[in-house]
Amino acid sequence: MKINGVSYRSVWLDREDGWSVRIFDQTRLPWEVAPLRLSTWREAAHAIRTMQVRGAPLIGAVAAYGVALAMREDPSQLDEVLREMAETRPTAINLRWALERQKSRLHNLPPAERAEAAYAEAAEIADDDAETCRRIGENGLPLLEEIAARKGKVNVLTHCNAGWLATVDWGTALAPIYMAHDKGLDVHVWVDETRPRNQGAALTAFELGAHGVKHTVVSDNAGGHLMQHGEVDIVLVGTDRVTRTGDVANKIGTYLKALAARDNGVPFWVALPHSTLDMTVRDGVAEIPIEERSGTEVTDVTGRTADGRVETVRVAAEGSEAANPAFDVTPARLVTGLITERGRCAANEAALLDLYPEKG
Amino acid sequence: MKINGVSYRSVWLDREDGWSVRIFDQTRLPWEVAPLRLSTWREAAHAIRTMQVRGAPLIGAVAAYGVALAMREDPSQLDEVLREMAETRPTAINLRWALERQKSRLHNLPPAERAEAAYAEAAEIADDDAETCRRIGENGLPLLEEIAARKGKVNVLTHCNAGWLATVDWGTALAPIYMAHDKGLDVHVWVDETRPRNQGAALTAFELGAHGVKHTVVSDNAGGHLMQHGEVDIVLVGTDRVTRTGDVANKIGTYLKALAARDNGVPFWVALPHSTLDMTVRDGVAEIPIEERSGTEVTDVTGRTADGRVETVRVAAEGSEAANPAFDVTPARLVTGLITERGRCAANEAALLDLYPEKG
Repeated sequence: MKINGVSYRSVWLDREDGWSVRIFDQTRLPWEVAPLRLSTWREAAHAIRTMQVRGAPLIGAVAAYGVALAMREDPSQLDEVLREMAETRPTAINLRWALERQKSRLHNLPPAERAEAAYAEAAEIADDDAETCRRIGENGLPLLEEIAARKGKVNVLTHCNAGWLATVDWGTALAPIYMAHDKGLDVHVWVDETRPRNQGAALTAFELGAHGVKHTVVSDNAGGHLMQHGEVDIVLVGTDRVTRTGDVANKIGTYLKALAARDNGVPFWVALPHSTLDMTVRDGVAEIPIEERSGTEVTDVTGRTADGRVETVRVAAEGSEAANPAFDVTPARLVTGLITERGRCAANEAALLDLYPEKG
Repeated sequence: MKINGVSYRSVWLDREDGWSVRIFDQTRLPWEVAPLRLSTWREAAHAIRTMQVRGAPLIGAVAAYGVALAMREDPSQLDEVLREMAETRPTAINLRWALERQKSRLHNLPPAERAEAAYAEAAEIADDDAETCRRIGENGLPLLEEIAARKGKVNVLTHCNAGWLATVDWGTALAPIYMAHDKGLDVHVWVDETRPRNQGAALTAFELGAHGVKHTVVSDNAGGHLMQHGEVDIVLVGTDRVTRTGDVANKIGTYLKALAARDNGVPFWVALPHSTLDMTVRDGVAEIPIEERSGTEVTDVTGRTADGRVETVRVAAEGSEAANPAFDVTPARLVTGLITERGRCAANEAALLDLYPEKG
């Protein structure tokens, strides 16, 4: 997608040296749009752990490139790297999926051949993700076209960031929106700010603004009120893991929006690539591990002062502690449907196996 | 209630001059606990408009004292003052209620007698509110005692600030919690940070901490997840207006918590004084005006830096705008019950008229 008219992906190989990995440091966005260089696998692991990159599909691609960096450094450390890399974030299934792909490809290779193969596999994972997201966009677009045909415009509500910054290109939930915008539909997006890390206010608003899509930031608390008053035609979100039964793990607060959508008859759709499906899990609420992050992400907020300094301020009362579960699980019963690169389907086992028979 | 062991109310007459009004500037809390002097009625109106005081019952009391200040300045301006004061905040019904009380008391008095009568009426309103809140505490306490008897401890979730800083003393939703704590019950409060103005993280956490009540701040997004995992025994919130049919206007986001409570079988109780009832309204969602506040409250956050400076930082992407509806309406069907100074009742017209036959 584009920033000021220039096309970017969210992860790419350095054009000068051809082996180091470039990302945008998303903890610096939207104040600073500067590519960061990752030249060791530990830097790649650090980037995932500290959320310099985030978004389930992008985490997978950067982990794959991290393995490639590791194989370049020392191809005998494959098992150790796969194990440590898997522990950088617990909830996103794409991380495990990408590491499994690298493991299958590299495990039986002689060490001397691993680096080249690992770079090739990482590139395939990245290209596959970009193409997958483009297809998700195509498969989601008719939902927006139908609303636009009926109402003349479309109001979408989204939570967190499921745009191109969360993937390699296009995004998942935002891909249909970009396509609708590019086709000239009158689309407007309500952007949940997405506390505590503000990925909506900082990243989704940045992305949409840079591409020219109309949008309005709202507090996470506002969505129910907007739906009660007919201001939301459809909710579109991404996901970090979808179970065999269609339960959806996504950024904390997604479940509350699904409840409000159900209560107000607003369709609630979830966009995902195949790599986000976890067919080993049936009961999302009971089985998916939910990452508990530092309470300081809740008590402290980082932003830019009027005179341009980036500052962190504490909002909570002194001495008060905070809890910070980073994801929640929306039960399949609240999900209108899933948008995948193979088409749309209901959020249940039969429909998922219909689209993905090989995962049965 | 107490700060560092010293008892305070949230509004009082200056002990030196006996006529100017003192409040805590709640836009400076929790960083600065300094009483602010209001010496003109326009300063009182400004304090309400800019949320130096907030919370439906406290707004009513400060408006009443504002009328007293105005009558001291010029008793002929009664009608103008009542009209302008009523426009400072649109959603809280207590504001209108307090101004109606002043109007009834002052309207037929000769101008020379108005100032003394207005101060007396304001004092009655404040005393009445403190006593009302104490009774709300007594009437809510058995709900917490029942849970504690069954489970040994009580986990309450609350949204926004319905503590003594929102009233004259005790609070509404927090009154039963203070009483439970003072009686030695093992009570812990999940404090929704309450974006965009962070009244939970800043004020409720401050209040509870100053009184020694165990609490944990969470993002507004976390409540559904906590309820799914059995971490919330009861939701207790305040309200800015309750309709004849039991619909509840409260801080934006309350409706989402009510939906989650219903979905997880968690009781959802609303604490209110008689002055918050608006028997002229039946359909809360359709009829209650919802204040739209500045989008900068969403895009910008104020807090304290590590070295003690109070700074405002912008979190949202440059150029992105924000919408900021300040309240939402929770339909009566989602409300387990109401806690009033006269007792508890179901959220419907018959039950309300049973408690308040004179409002029929």
